[in-house]
Amino acid sequence: MSEHLSGGLTLGAFQRMILQLYGRKDAARGDAATFLWFAEEVGELATALRTGTPDELAMEMADVLAWLVTLANVRGVDLEAAVLRKYGGACPGCRQLPCACDPSEKP
Amino acid sequence: MSEHLSGGLTLGAFQRMILQLYGRKDAARGDAATFLWFAEEVGELATALRTGTPDELAMEMADVLAWLVTLANVRGVDLEAAVLRKYGGACPGCRQLPCACDPSEKP
Repeated sequence: MSEHLSGGLTLGAFQRMILQLYGRKDAARGDAATFLWFAEEVGELATALRTGTPDELAMEMADVLAWLVTLANVRGVDLEAAVLRKYGGACPGCRQLPCACDPSEKP
Repeated sequence: MSEHLSGGLTLGAFQRMILQLYGRKDAARGDAATFLWFAEEVGELATALRTGTPDELAMEMADVLAWLVTLANVRGVDLEAAVLRKYGGACPGCRQLPCACDPSEKP
């Protein structure tokens, strides 16, 4: 897994890292059951936002990302390509950089 | 934003991209209100998992990641460092690669 050690960890490399670690079990579990694990981590993130230490908060965010990437693996989504397509240019709402959307509007 | 164009998009570069796009509004909104937007996207992801097209699913995953990164910006978390620390070696549960944890156990 040396591909991420120079120049930072790409999203694609992280997705492959999680595939290598958990891919076999993830495929057997399927998307609905994987979403339950993801949702549980989202709940733990809420707790950490309220009462966690900075370290606990960082680890809960890491877990949420790991389970999101797991869902992407199970459903065959290239998450790096997806975020580049949606956010790689300017704001997908107003097409400006920085975003000039009304704060009450998405995104 | 050319830093992500060669060799893939690093998590750090994506976090900076979202900061550049939305950082001012995000800081004014704060973490609790940002979590509401994040949670709304999690709900939309559930819908896309059930009934979305492959493209809709990919875009909802991109949105969830964008709001997670937004939370990281608001709370000053380096998400790339966090996932490397937790998942950069082997499974944080069993310390093996691939993971050999019992499927009923985390992670």
